[in-house]
Amino acid sequence: MGILRIGHVALRVLDIDRAIHHYTKVLGLLQSYVDDNGSVYLKGWDEWDLYSLKLTESDRAGVEHIAYKVHHEADLETLAARVEAWGIAVSRHAAGDLEGCGRTISFALPSGHLMVLYAEKEFRGKSVGTIDPEPWPDGLQGAGVHWLDHVMLMCPVDLDAGVNTVADNVRFLKEALDFYLAEQVLAGPDHSVQAAAWLFRGNKPHDLAMAGGPVAGLHHIAFYLDSWHDLLRATDILGKHRVKMDVTPQRHGITRGQTTYFFDPSGNRNEMFASLGYYAQPDMPTITWHAEELWRGIFFHHGEPRPDFIEVYT
Amino acid sequence: MGILRIGHVALRVLDIDRAIHHYTKVLGLLQSYVDDNGSVYLKGWDEWDLYSLKLTESDRAGVEHIAYKVHHEADLETLAARVEAWGIAVSRHAAGDLEGCGRTISFALPSGHLMVLYAEKEFRGKSVGTIDPEPWPDGLQGAGVHWLDHVMLMCPVDLDAGVNTVADNVRFLKEALDFYLAEQVLAGPDHSVQAAAWLFRGNKPHDLAMAGGPVAGLHHIAFYLDSWHDLLRATDILGKHRVKMDVTPQRHGITRGQTTYFFDPSGNRNEMFASLGYYAQPDMPTITWHAEELWRGIFFHHGEPRPDFIEVYT
Amino acid sequence: MGILRIGHVALRVLDIDRAIHHYTKVLGLLQSYVDDNGSVYLKGWDEWDLYSLKLTESDRAGVEHIAYKVHHEADLETLAARVEAWGIAVSRHAAGDLEGCGRTISFALPSGHLMVLYAEKEFRGKSVGTIDPEPWPDGLQGAGVHWLDHVMLMCPVDLDAGVNTVADNVRFLKEALDFYLAEQVLAGPDHSVQAAAWLFRGNKPHDLAMAGGPVAGLHHIAFYLDSWHDLLRATDILGKHRVKMDVTPQRHGITRGQTTYFFDPSGNRNEMFASLGYYAQPDMPTITWHAEELWRGIFFHHGEPRPDFIEVYT
Amino acid sequence: MGILRIGHVALRVLDIDRAIHHYTKVLGLLQSYVDDNGSVYLKGWDEWDLYSLKLTESDRAGVEHIAYKVHHEADLETLAARVEAWGIAVSRHAAGDLEGCGRTISFALPSGHLMVLYAEKEFRGKSVGTIDPEPWPDGLQGAGVHWLDHVMLMCPVDLDAGVNTVADNVRFLKEALDFYLAEQVLAGPDHSVQAAAWLFRGNKPHDLAMAGGPVAGLHHIAFYLDSWHDLLRATDILGKHRVKMDVTPQRHGITRGQTTYFFDPSGNRNEMFASLGYYAQPDMPTITWHAEELWRGIFFHHGEPRPDFIEVYT
Repeated sequence: MGILRIGHVALRVLDIDRAIHHYTKVLGLLQSYVDDNGSVYLKGWDEWDLYSLKLTESDRAGVEHIAYKVHHEADLETLAARVEAWGIAVSRHAAGDLEGCGRTISFALPSGHLMVLYAEKEFRGKSVGTIDPEPWPDGLQGAGVHWLDHVMLMCPVDLDAGVNTVADNVRFLKEALDFYLAEQVLAGPDHSVQAAAWLFRGNKPHDLAMAGGPVAGLHHIAFYLDSWHDLLRATDILGKHRVKMDVTPQRHGITRGQTTYFFDPSGNRNEMFASLGYYAQPDMPTITWHAEELWRGIFFHHGEPRPDFIEVYT
Repeated sequence: MGILRIGHVALRVLDIDRAIHHYTKVLGLLQSYVDDNGSVYLKGWDEWDLYSLKLTESDRAGVEHIAYKVHHEADLETLAARVEAWGIAVSRHAAGDLEGCGRTISFALPSGHLMVLYAEKEFRGKSVGTIDPEPWPDGLQGAGVHWLDHVMLMCPVDLDAGVNTVADNVRFLKEALDFYLAEQVLAGPDHSVQAAAWLFRGNKPHDLAMAGGPVAGLHHIAFYLDSWHDLLRATDILGKHRVKMDVTPQRHGITRGQTTYFFDPSGNRNEMFASLGYYAQPDMPTITWHAEELWRGIFFHHGEPRPDFIEVYT
Repeated sequence: MGILRIGHVALRVLDIDRAIHHYTKVLGLLQSYVDDNGSVYLKGWDEWDLYSLKLTESDRAGVEHIAYKVHHEADLETLAARVEAWGIAVSRHAAGDLEGCGRTISFALPSGHLMVLYAEKEFRGKSVGTIDPEPWPDGLQGAGVHWLDHVMLMCPVDLDAGVNTVADNVRFLKEALDFYLAEQVLAGPDHSVQAAAWLFRGNKPHDLAMAGGPVAGLHHIAFYLDSWHDLLRATDILGKHRVKMDVTPQRHGITRGQTTYFFDPSGNRNEMFASLGYYAQPDMPTITWHAEELWRGIFFHHGEPRPDFIEVYT
Repeated sequence: MGILRIGHVALRVLDIDRAIHHYTKVLGLLQSYVDDNGSVYLKGWDEWDLYSLKLTESDRAGVEHIAYKVHHEADLETLAARVEAWGIAVSRHAAGDLEGCGRTISFALPSGHLMVLYAEKEFRGKSVGTIDPEPWPDGLQGAGVHWLDHVMLMCPVDLDAGVNTVADNVRFLKEALDFYLAEQVLAGPDHSVQAAAWLFRGNKPHDLAMAGGPVAGLHHIAFYLDSWHDLLRATDILGKHRVKMDVTPQRHGITRGQTTYFFDPSGNRNEMFASLGYYAQPDMPTITWHAEELWRGIFFHHGEPRPDFIEVYT
């Protein structure tokens, strides 16, 4: 059955202690593990696997790899074959090579990002348990985000050189990994250039999004909240902690997301994303944004350019 | 890939005009088609297929059939074979036999309810379109529900006679149709009786729910709203229209749903269901409610028995 | 300038420890004082005076007195004279006779309830302080109610005996204490019987409400929350604590209140009341509910009788 | 009893038709009157007097006068005498001189703004009526704002020249008109300069606010919404209408307001302000913001300077 959902992001941070404080006290993730190299693993209260975020101290910020969970062990080899058939080399790793996980495969997306697939990860359980559970746990800290929701990658595009790895990624993800295209931005004089894309495997508007930029990088990782009201409370908490903000609570046109953006202490952009938006399905027609309406699509309320929103990333 | 989602419910109503008023002016569905027999077809503004609700005038209320959409035409025959292998007879119907749909298969669930599967339905499109869409359309009426979200069936259970079609349905839906079990109620002295179940194919807590009762019937059909606040506004609208209420806005323990229940003019129970609740996935451990906590599970806020809530249905 | 607002309610409770737990851990009031007799005083985080609730252990539940704060010390004697002129005896008390307060006057309302007026109460301050305050404090417990908002009294009415202390109270409160009538229920064949009333001195729909009953008592004390969403979270917390519920989140027609009702461990009814409703002003025309629409006025969503809601009180 | 509330703002607009469209179709005010000079009068659905906004076409935008309603006719002469005693000249006008109003007095604030007081204005009634009213009316357009909530004036400050009309206004409004000071910004090396102030007569954090600038003008007029959720919907509507935005939904530290700012087609700044914030009372201690925290006070979520927010006004 293939890919289920985003499983985790492995993130580089400049100062592990400040990162832990940010992701636990401010966002409300739970620290679930520390490995021998000092990397720290965290999970949301509403997730059941051991971790959805790995933090590793480094001299530069950014994403190390993105990992998606597949349904069955056998999917790994099926998908590996399809990736190889598409012309991309696949590495195969034994169980345990990736902390807490079973066998994995990994490969580079056309954009250069490292993608990992796994079928098994150590089970930890939701904070509310599985017997007569309460709707939310006591003792949440900070914003109390539910889960890692999606990631957005910046993908090299140089049209003069004939390079558009957004389009390449989309084609690869659809053809080799059975992703579906929820929304896209078409740019260029005849709207022939796929400048950004939102793809899904589950029923949310995106599990993996991407936009074009000068170099490969991470635009943001996003965490789920239930409602616009939770987003107010969560952004109040960002204010209390003097977190560096990027975008205060707004409505996306694209995905209909109720959103707020900010930076972790290393400069990695975070999003808190509220409400389902819409129910994505394989037979839902793809939504297209013309570049002329790009900023309205990003910031539906004001519709004005914020170049730094797409130029600044890690 | 099998079943995608609930596609529509065919409902019997006592007075078609009153039903149309209820489902369009109060709930905000859009009338999209009328067939030669006077049956009326409706869709939510956020759905793209021709209809998700079919209303047929009759001398008794209740559900005629429930229909689920499968991903590919080929899935129909694959699933037909699995249903037959499970020991249930399957009927095959030509395109057009079911209004606006391609080929269909149909069969009776162990509980006796008629289930239809189809791969194609005439496309109509969301009210907001697919090019630079606004987050919601102008001119919505009433509650402006987004889509048909799920259905709950009442299934014959007579433990003295060794009959438990809730459990039979669950086994069938899992084994033959690849549904996943999100939550269940276990009753009996040793919690060995599966008294109610919530199953999903997508990532919402339920696409098909069922509970045990003396005779087969319909407990409710549910429509989606985005938030608890939308639910207040929607229930205000029910009050303005003097709709017969069943349950005012509350929190379910089961599914975490933010919910309100009421009756259409024929006595068919409706639900408006807000927020995603949680993100259901095949590897999410099943949540179990012990019968002792059943009422807390249904009505988390007060936890008190409301026998009529499970005894009254169509 | 007369009465500013409700200052506090002195409540009798059957078990002081359970009462403290309820009002601090569940509702989120802060314990601010204990007197020599073991009475416990509490305040909301958004209140600046020493207390708004006094709890005294007793062998029966109910209200001991209600206290309203006047603007200036001189208002006490002015109002005492007006109360006496109206024909009601007034007691005058030295500073300190009422814990933490300056001079007070007290008198019995026509309904028999003891009402206290004071101009000074020891200052404690809001939890967020007055210099560069945050919008809400860290470390709130339970529902985190903002302040004591109003009280509703049950007032003896025996129409056969020519007794209607609701109407008597209204006349007294308007004429002697300059309250304004926001809403009223008119009953009887020609709508000539004032069966319930909501009066204000500030700009909220009510500072003091009353309804008719067989004997004098307390219908409820109400605490303020900011929004319908806060009310969901707060009622979830009631569910977590297994508090005995009376009315799950609903919309009042009367006052437009977003409301939930429940009982403290002694059986005193509590309300959490969200949002301003409307802006009450002396020149706002009084809203009248005809008795035929009483239940729609109380429970706008379902409009059905709940006799226990007016028959059960302390 | 003096001033009750803001009664109306008389606004100059560059194009009356575009202004009418903005204030009715986008904000949802109701046009209630047109005078012989073509000025247009509007009211919110939840207001009972004839109008709260007067629009007059002009070759420049800005405020013509602000009007406050007093409780009793006799208050007019009492306050006129106090204003004169304070050293400010008062004009007295016959009933009808101000459209739809009884007798009025007018005078210039120290900042130069024209302030009008009146006791009587023609009654029109809330859209929901006074008998068994629904909580909100059917057929609202646009954002459906409830009422004109407050106004913020820009007041000349030139410290080198010893001019601070913010401080002058505050002193005047407190001493002559019995306003109360809810919040203030103190600037200067020893926090001795009152740079902005929020004053109230009712129980909301402000009925009249002011900040210092190079010339007298209007910072914004504000309309009330019930909740943060209503603010999302309202700002979505601004986006649909391509209204020029100033500040997308945010939390003020000052007043705790949930807010969005934008411009009418003439460049007059509007605010939609949601939720009560806190309950202002004469004995509530004044909240002080030190200039170092000014931007956190204005924009609690990001706390960053937005000089244009205080430099651009009409």
